[in-house]
Amino acid sequence: MLQAYWAERMSAIAVFELFVRKLPSQRNFLVAAGLAQVAEYLLDLRFTADELAYLGVTGRFAPAFLASLRDLRFTGDVDAMPEGTTCFPDEPMIRITAPIREAQLVESRVMNLMHYQTIVASKAVRCALAAPGRLLVDFGLRRAHGGEAALLSARASYLAGFSGTATVDAGRQFGVPIYGTMAHSYIQAHADESAAFAAFARTQPENAILLIDTYDTERAAHKVVQLARTLAAEGIAIKGVRIDSGDLAEHARRVRAILDTNGLAAVSIFASGNLDEFQVRDLLTRGAPIDGFGIGTRMNTSADAPYLDCAYKLQEYDGEPRRKRSEGKATWPGRKQVYRQYDAAGRWQRDVVTLASHPVPGTPLLVPVVREGRLVAPLPELSVIRQRVCEEVARLPESLRALDGQVPPQVELAPALRELAAEIDART
Amino acid sequence: MLQAYWAERMSAIAVFELFVRKLPSQRNFLVAAGLAQVAEYLLDLRFTADELAYLGVTGRFAPAFLASLRDLRFTGDVDAMPEGTTCFPDEPMIRITAPIREAQLVESRVMNLMHYQTIVASKAVRCALAAPGRLLVDFGLRRAHGGEAALLSARASYLAGFSGTATVDAGRQFGVPIYGTMAHSYIQAHADESAAFAAFARTQPENAILLIDTYDTERAAHKVVQLARTLAAEGIAIKGVRIDSGDLAEHARRVRAILDTNGLAAVSIFASGNLDEFQVRDLLTRGAPIDGFGIGTRMNTSADAPYLDCAYKLQEYDGEPRRKRSEGKATWPGRKQVYRQYDAAGRWQRDVVTLASHPVPGTPLLVPVVREGRLVAPLPELSVIRQRVCEEVARLPESLRALDGQVPPQVELAPALRELAAEIDART
Repeated sequence: MLQAYWAERMSAIAVFELFVRKLPSQRNFLVAAGLAQVAEYLLDLRFTADELAYLGVTGRFAPAFLASLRDLRFTGDVDAMPEGTTCFPDEPMIRITAPIREAQLVESRVMNLMHYQTIVASKAVRCALAAPGRLLVDFGLRRAHGGEAALLSARASYLAGFSGTATVDAGRQFGVPIYGTMAHSYIQAHADESAAFAAFARTQPENAILLIDTYDTERAAHKVVQLARTLAAEGIAIKGVRIDSGDLAEHARRVRAILDTNGLAAVSIFASGNLDEFQVRDLLTRGAPIDGFGIGTRMNTSADAPYLDCAYKLQEYDGEPRRKRSEGKATWPGRKQVYRQYDAAGRWQRDVVTLASHPVPGTPLLVPVVREGRLVAPLPELSVIRQRVCEEVARLPESLRALDGQVPPQVELAPALRELAAEIDART
Repeated sequence: MLQAYWAERMSAIAVFELFVRKLPSQRNFLVAAGLAQVAEYLLDLRFTADELAYLGVTGRFAPAFLASLRDLRFTGDVDAMPEGTTCFPDEPMIRITAPIREAQLVESRVMNLMHYQTIVASKAVRCALAAPGRLLVDFGLRRAHGGEAALLSARASYLAGFSGTATVDAGRQFGVPIYGTMAHSYIQAHADESAAFAAFARTQPENAILLIDTYDTERAAHKVVQLARTLAAEGIAIKGVRIDSGDLAEHARRVRAILDTNGLAAVSIFASGNLDEFQVRDLLTRGAPIDGFGIGTRMNTSADAPYLDCAYKLQEYDGEPRRKRSEGKATWPGRKQVYRQYDAAGRWQRDVVTLASHPVPGTPLLVPVVREGRLVAPLPELSVIRQRVCEEVARLPESLRALDGQVPPQVELAPALRELAAEIDART
C-alpha cells in the first residue's frame, strides 16, 4: 500500500480512528488501555537497516521507495481517551491524524497494543469489582500469549485495580508492585514440608506466603502453626498461606479455624487456581475467609472474550470524510469526538458521539496526546491511571458494574454524524 | 525460592517435565511447538546488570545471593518432543534436567513459550485440515496478544500447515513466506475504487490481490474485469480478489461467475473476516469457489480454547522421584518417556507413558536437545517441522483428525509408573 501511495504521490493527511464495534456478551463496558505503549511506538517509529535490507531481498519493492522509508518518522497527531477511561462501542478510543503513509503503516501495531491491554484491563476490572478490598495479584505470566503479553497484562491489570503482579520484570519496567510466590516444586524439592516453609520464611521475612496444598492442606496448616512459634522467637511473622486446589472455600474455612484457634488471626489466606471474577464472586458469596486472590490465565488471556470486534478505519482523507460501507461493517465518517454527560450527582448518564466540528454538551473524552510527532505533555503515571479507573467505574450505574451481561448502553450518535453519513451515501 | 535454595545450599539436580493435563473440548490432539524459542532462551539465559540492579533495590535479596546470579547460566539438559510432534495429555512434551535453581527459574518462560505456540499450532492444524489444498494466510497481527504473540503465531501456524503470513517481520525473523494484503482504508483513500486497484496491481504486479468489498462486491468485480483488460496490455495479470464481508459463499459464487464469463478463470478468490476452521469447512461444504483464506484472530488467540491446562512439575530431585498430590492435580512421578506405537501400515495406534528407565516397545518421542547447556545438534528448519506435522497428522486415525470433539485417546500409563507412584504414596 505504501509503495502504491508513493508511486501515486499520495501524501495528504489521513484521519484514522480505532473503535470497538460490539461488546462481548459478558462485558458491560470497556476500560481503554495501552495508550502509553502506542505513544512510545509512534515516537520511536523507524525502519532499521536490517529491516530495510530484508524488504530489499524480497524483491517486491523499488529501491527508491525503500530509500524513502529510511527517513520515515511519525510526524502526525494523536488524540485519545486517557488510559483508564471507561468506554463503549462506536466510540473512537484513539484518533491518528498524519500523512497517509504514516497513519496507514502503524495500523497493525497500534491495534495490537490497544486491543490487548484493553481486553485485559476490561477483564481485570471485573475481578476487582468481584473482590472489593481484597488483594489481587496477577499470576499469569506462564500462560499469557508470549512475553510481551505477560508484561503488558501485569501493567493493564494493575491499572484496572489489581494490587500487583508476580511478573517481576513488570516491576522493573513499569513500577507495578511485585509479589513473590512459591511453586509446589519448591515444597516437593524438600524432603520435609516444614523445612521448606521455614527456609522460605527466613529468606523473605516480610513477605512469606506459604503454599500449603502440596500434600494435605489442613495438615500443612498445623505445620504452619508449629513453625510460627519457632519463627516468633526469631522475630519473623508468617504473612499468609496460599491454597491452590480442592474446594477453596471449604479449605479456607478449615484453615482459618486452625490458624485462629492457635493465635494466628493475623495470618492471611490467599487462594489461586484458574480463578476468574465469577469464581471469586462465588467464593466470597459463600463467605469463604479469603483475603487475597492470585488470578492469572483467565484474566490475561481474557479467556471468555479473548478478542474484541474492533477496527482502525479511515474517516477522512485530504479533508474529505470517508465511509466504508461493507455489509455489516459500515463505519461512521469524519473526525469524531465523544462527549460524556453526567447527572447532577456526578453519575454517568450517556455518551454522545459527534463530529469533532459539532460539539455537544458534556466532557470531551478524546484529548490531545501527540502533536507533530511530539508528546503534548508527559503521560500520566500508572497510579494516576489506576485512580481514574476507580473513579470512572464508581460513576457507572450499578447495572453496568454487574458481572453478568446487561443490555449495553446505546451510545447516542449526534444528528451531525448521521447527516454526514447520509450525505456521503447520496454522493456515491 | 532461589534465595532459599541458596541459603539452604540446595543445588542438586532437579528433573522437571512440562505436560498438558487435559485437552480442551474441541481438540482431539495437540501439535507440540515452541521448542526452538525455549532452546534459544535457555542458551542465552543470564541476568543483565539492569535486572540485577532492580532486584537489589527491591530490598528483598541478600547482596551475596544477587552476586551469585551474575554468573547464572543454563548448564543442564533438555529432552523434548521435536516440534511438530502430535501429542496428548499426560505426555511430557519437554523435560529439563539441571541444578535446581536453573530448572526452577526457567519455569514461567519455558511454559509461556511452549504453551502459546502449541495452542496456535494445534488450532492452525485444524484450519489446514478443514481446507486441504487451499492457500491459508495468517492475518492475525492486529488482535494477537502483543507483538511476540503475533510473531510466534505466524511461525506456529506456518509449521502447522499455513502457507504464510501477512506479518512481514516473521518473514525476516523466521523465513515464513510473506503475503501482502490491502486494507479497506487503502481503497477509501482513493476517490475512485478502480484507480486504487490499478495502482496496487502496478506496484505489486506479481502479487496483486484486490480487496473488492469496500462498497459493492459485485460491482467491484466488474471493475476488476475492466482493469484486467487495461493491465493485460502492460503485461500485468491480476492474481486474485479478496472478499471480507457479507455471505462469503454467495459473493464468491457471483464473483466467480463474473470473472469466468469474462475470461478471468485464472483470477483466484480469497476470503477473510473472522474465520476459523468451522467457517472454512462450512464454506467449502457449501461449494463456495474460494481458493484461499486469510485467518487471523480466532487462530492466533485460539479463541475457542485460549489456554491449555498444563503444568511444569518437579518429578525428581537429587535422584529421588517426587510426586505432587494436590486434589485434582496429582502428578506422575519420575523421569518419563513416551513410546508411540504404530500398526503395520504405519498408522498411529497408541502412546505409552513410562519411566525413562523402563522402556516399552515403540518409538521414543522425547529426544536429546541440549546437553550441559549446549545444543546436541542444530534444530530443524521450519520446512522440516512443517513436513513432520503433515506426516504425523496423516498417521492419526480419521476420528482424531475430525474437527468435532471426540473421546480423546486414553494415553496408556505403563505399570512401572503406577508402581512408582504407589510406592511414593505409601512412603509419605
